[in-house]
Amino acid sequence: MDGQSIDLMADIGSAARLAAAELAYATPARKEAALSAAADAVWAQRQAILDANALDLAYGAEKGLSSAMMDRLRLDETRIQGIADGLRAVAAQADPVGRVLAEWDRPNGLHIQRVATPLGVVGVIYESRPNVTADAGALCLKAGNAVILRGGSESFHSSGAIHACMLAGLRAAGLPETAIQLVPTRDREMVSAMLRAVEHIDVIVPRGGKGLVGLVQREARVPVFAHLEGICHVYADADADLEKARRVVLNAKTRRTGICGSAECLLIDRGFYARHGAVLIEDLLAAGVEVRAEGELQEIPGTVAAQPDDFGREFLDMIIAARLVDGVDGAIAHIRQFGSSHTESILTENDATAERFFQRLDSAILMRNASTQFADGGEFGMGAEIGIATGKMHARGPVGAEQLCSFKYLVRGNGTCRP
Amino acid sequence: MDGQSIDLMADIGSAARLAAAELAYATPARKEAALSAAADAVWAQRQAILDANALDLAYGAEKGLSSAMMDRLRLDETRIQGIADGLRAVAAQADPVGRVLAEWDRPNGLHIQRVATPLGVVGVIYESRPNVTADAGALCLKAGNAVILRGGSESFHSSGAIHACMLAGLRAAGLPETAIQLVPTRDREMVSAMLRAVEHIDVIVPRGGKGLVGLVQREARVPVFAHLEGICHVYADADADLEKARRVVLNAKTRRTGICGSAECLLIDRGFYARHGAVLIEDLLAAGVEVRAEGELQEIPGTVAAQPDDFGREFLDMIIAARLVDGVDGAIAHIRQFGSSHTESILTENDATAERFFQRLDSAILMRNASTQFADGGEFGMGAEIGIATGKMHARGPVGAEQLCSFKYLVRGNGTCRP
Repeated sequence: MDGQSIDLMADIGSAARLAAAELAYATPARKEAALSAAADAVWAQRQAILDANALDLAYGAEKGLSSAMMDRLRLDETRIQGIADGLRAVAAQADPVGRVLAEWDRPNGLHIQRVATPLGVVGVIYESRPNVTADAGALCLKAGNAVILRGGSESFHSSGAIHACMLAGLRAAGLPETAIQLVPTRDREMVSAMLRAVEHIDVIVPRGGKGLVGLVQREARVPVFAHLEGICHVYADADADLEKARRVVLNAKTRRTGICGSAECLLIDRGFYARHGAVLIEDLLAAGVEVRAEGELQEIPGTVAAQPDDFGREFLDMIIAARLVDGVDGAIAHIRQFGSSHTESILTENDATAERFFQRLDSAILMRNASTQFADGGEFGMGAEIGIATGKMHARGPVGAEQLCSFKYLVRGNGTCRP
Repeated sequence: MDGQSIDLMADIGSAARLAAAELAYATPARKEAALSAAADAVWAQRQAILDANALDLAYGAEKGLSSAMMDRLRLDETRIQGIADGLRAVAAQADPVGRVLAEWDRPNGLHIQRVATPLGVVGVIYESRPNVTADAGALCLKAGNAVILRGGSESFHSSGAIHACMLAGLRAAGLPETAIQLVPTRDREMVSAMLRAVEHIDVIVPRGGKGLVGLVQREARVPVFAHLEGICHVYADADADLEKARRVVLNAKTRRTGICGSAECLLIDRGFYARHGAVLIEDLLAAGVEVRAEGELQEIPGTVAAQPDDFGREFLDMIIAARLVDGVDGAIAHIRQFGSSHTESILTENDATAERFFQRLDSAILMRNASTQFADGGEFGMGAEIGIATGKMHARGPVGAEQLCSFKYLVRGNGTCRP
């Protein structure tokens, strides 16, 4: 890490701390006004954003980015409208700061409240999608946090143009512009500087592929909200309803294969298989999914033989691993060994079996008779999310504005002394 | 860190993970039975515990421990009774695991619950007090966590004897003995091994002086629940009630000076001082407190001149720093500069002033017209506490069984698919 990055990090970090102190008691109306004004600015400045995006696309083409990356990078009027709509949606959410999370009285007359407060300063490190500039900036601001954004070098100009709109929003509402800072350099050393900035940053949220998240989790000295992989399992129990099971399995795998809530492994109880046969797998094959099957399931025409490393693997593609298991305990044992603590779903009509699955697994999200594709802050009703976390501390599952909060205790007495 | 410590850490850590998986769904009755049986064992084995303590006291005398440390180390029948009572109190608390923290329905029929789960494996690193073996072990067990205890080398035998009683409790309830493990060596390398055991330990709680806590905060790769210092402030506002203020200031400083909630700095508003004069400081002087005063306050007979480093200093003694400030904003500015985010109290009858103090400071605990000595899990009504945390993430303020929990989402559908 070079001296220049350390100096820049200290400057940005100190400014963020000062902004955070002010944001902590900014009124809900003021934060809402800033986000609405930012949405207006994004739409008004759409041509400037598209021009900036054109520079990034030219740079990306020169660098030979994959077509998937080029697609993530590309903006058009529809996507810009989506960014503005996202800002308005966060603006309209309930303000999470100051919520009374718990309160009680003590026999000596003390009244104790636990109230939500901002976390402080959030660092967001992301890759090619320029819309994260607006989404992450908005959620952090809603929760009263200052944010330091470090976008991908590919989206440098697009992120800058969107950031300018966020600043316009802050100015319009009379909030400090340092509330949402964008690292003004493509220098990769700044990522290292952010990961070590325990004095200046309270939590880091990486947004991107496994390479980025893995780097952040390995190197960060600052706490991290993230999931490395979404190796989501669907288990079809002996007591599953066949029609529900067919519907959910197909949706969990095929609705969108590139998101972290997509199912990567189908576990079928031997009793279910004895009664219903290959129908779940035949549905997947008919939908064009490559089914990597183990043991007896390989006898089903159209499947391919699973390799050992196909279990515990995140395909993010039209591929699924499949295996027979002995009841819910077999499914639990498999998931404990191969899961990533993200999301698993059980298909069963048996309450006791579902309860056992819910009790004995400790993934961030456990589902019954529902598609793993619901693992999403929007689908949970949280408005937007900055990501999904699989750690045990503070934030798990979808991370929205509520999860970007900390808390403090307020204690009210009447000259009360401790005996 | 030597290879032997790494191997031992891996053995202990793997056993703890296995125990944690089982504890996660242990019934409340079983955990309660284990703690009650442990309390019985502590009392039944009091002579064995006293004999072990005699070995530690002899070792401590040989090492030339201070009389304060010898006192913390020493056990007698009363203190052993206190340990047994503490175990019974935790046994009687409500079980924190499985609590529904929030639940809601979605328009598509999904029902979403956020429920409390154990954190997993807790590491506790402590110094001379052997009772931490029982207190920390009990709170971790109550929250369904496995715990790895690393006691001070001075209390090696005493902690071992108490630990044997905890194991007797686990056996009696049919829970795995590896739920509460005591590191079986005095080797200091094991502390380093624990601080780096991110695979095996979810959170580290240090219990001891600033030297230990500072070491843990600097070196740990595992998350830490702790506070480095309790530099607690009391601010007497212009609108304070004089009698309440006198009572609270005296209690906050003098009730017990060695605890983290003891006041270390008195801030007096100039208006209060103009109206009421030196009375708060005279009370402290009369009680035998050394008052290190700044500016005009030095004119009060009996005070000594404060040095610059007396502000932001944890005396843990009959000493207090004192300064005049300009209103609540002066107090807020002082506390932001010199506080340790632990506990601060405002003395005022003015609601708006109190609200400003509550909003603009972000200490873990803020009080109004109450003594900072209430900063304690027992006084908060949490039963016992494993410590007090000043971090922003997960746990702040007193850390009891509830705070030793994580959570997961349980989602119930009816064959529900995402469009």
